[in-house]
Amino acid sequence: MSQQLATVTDLDDLTVRLRAFAAERDWEPFHSPRNLAAALIVEAGELLEHFQWLGDAESSQLTPERRERVAMEAADVLLYLVRLADRLDIDLLAAAGRKLAINAEKYPVPLARGTHRKYDEL
Amino acid sequence: MSQQLATVTDLDDLTVRLRAFAAERDWEPFHSPRNLAAALIVEAGELLEHFQWLGDAESSQLTPERRERVAMEAADVLLYLVRLADRLDIDLLAAAGRKLAINAEKYPVPLARGTHRKYDEL
Amino acid sequence: MSQQLATVTDLDDLTVRLRAFAAERDWEPFHSPRNLAAALIVEAGELLEHFQWLGDAESSQLTPERRERVAMEAADVLLYLVRLADRLDIDLLAAAGRKLAINAEKYPVPLARGTHRKYDEL
Amino acid sequence: MSQQLATVTDLDDLTVRLRAFAAERDWEPFHSPRNLAAALIVEAGELLEHFQWLGDAESSQLTPERRERVAMEAADVLLYLVRLADRLDIDLLAAAGRKLAINAEKYPVPLARGTHRKYDEL
Repeated sequence: MSQQLATVTDLDDLTVRLRAFAAERDWEPFHSPRNLAAALIVEAGELLEHFQWLGDAESSQLTPERRERVAMEAADVLLYLVRLADRLDIDLLAAAGRKLAINAEKYPVPLARGTHRKYDEL
Repeated sequence: MSQQLATVTDLDDLTVRLRAFAAERDWEPFHSPRNLAAALIVEAGELLEHFQWLGDAESSQLTPERRERVAMEAADVLLYLVRLADRLDIDLLAAAGRKLAINAEKYPVPLARGTHRKYDEL
Repeated sequence: MSQQLATVTDLDDLTVRLRAFAAERDWEPFHSPRNLAAALIVEAGELLEHFQWLGDAESSQLTPERRERVAMEAADVLLYLVRLADRLDIDLLAAAGRKLAINAEKYPVPLARGTHRKYDEL
Repeated sequence: MSQQLATVTDLDDLTVRLRAFAAERDWEPFHSPRNLAAALIVEAGELLEHFQWLGDAESSQLTPERRERVAMEAADVLLYLVRLADRLDIDLLAAAGRKLAINAEKYPVPLARGTHRKYDEL
């Protein structure tokens, strides 16, 4: 428990903690990739709920209470994402690096500047 | 570009890269927290799509091609999550640590073992 | 109010009621298509939450209480869908008819029988 | 097929058509409530994708091509919603009527006018 309150140092540390958290509770049978992907989007919905009626400017000016609630929903998304990646043996940072390289090709600066169009409409 | 292909070392590094990626393309006006929360759930849907018709066992046995596609969708979720946290000045690992502590209280091992019930139904 | 408790007869009737509901509360400014699409997916997440840890068989055997909660979330999805269609002047039943015809072409019985593969993988 | 191209007259008609569509393809085993709820949110994500970078005003001024694509995504949401309701024996219009009555109580006009706050914050 004191262990769980200690600072999370990085994604690997978080992975190990979540694995232990699930194992202690015999939750592995529930943590199939498909269930984790479902749980992730449910949390993404709770995150979006905070913003659904806000204009763009309002959505940047949250009260401290709202911001903390948003932080907890963002954390939930991260927890399920890390857990899902662990179950599928995906290295999230390496995958993010590959995706960044793909995005840099799909959205070259001269074409993508100032537009929100999708790469196939640039 | 060679910079973008270099290894992503941690979430802070990813944050800085995404900030530069958006700035170079003048995308900040589109990257309001509410838009990023919407983009995140859209990617979470693309992630879930890979699993929607699979049983629990099947969802753990992906082909290498499918697994890489799943990894790219998981990366997209991470990219938007990191970007959203940056825009709201949320420290994701610290938030994850706080959430882990909350979950440890909500789901004590003796009550939560082997059940998928929500904390308010334990 | 007694009006609102009367039976909803069809989608047109529901459209008219929702329009009045929003107008009485001056909610039109919030009901942009983008906000309604966000609200819809938030409700779809609340719907999915009921099923996220359930196996396929379990998900068909809900208690009456759970089933009513699911029905209320399904209703929320319908309300936002009907409201969104109204704002964009989309005839939902006509659109559903067009989509059925497209699906019948994409998934011919001989190819699609017994498989959950996507049309581009048949 | 000519049957499938005929006009969809109401939700009951749509229910019967979708049931036949699935039966002809032996898709019932895939159509568990949990899978249908997952498929529904995936489509809700594809619907939201059209709006994710748009401002409120822009989201009301779609080109005819974009509007038709949005209509097809909205239709997909409706198809899965109707199919899910059928599998759980939920009467969608009756559920919508019950939800409208609940919303009328949660959001009384004098309190709810002109605000997007949630009922528990009114």
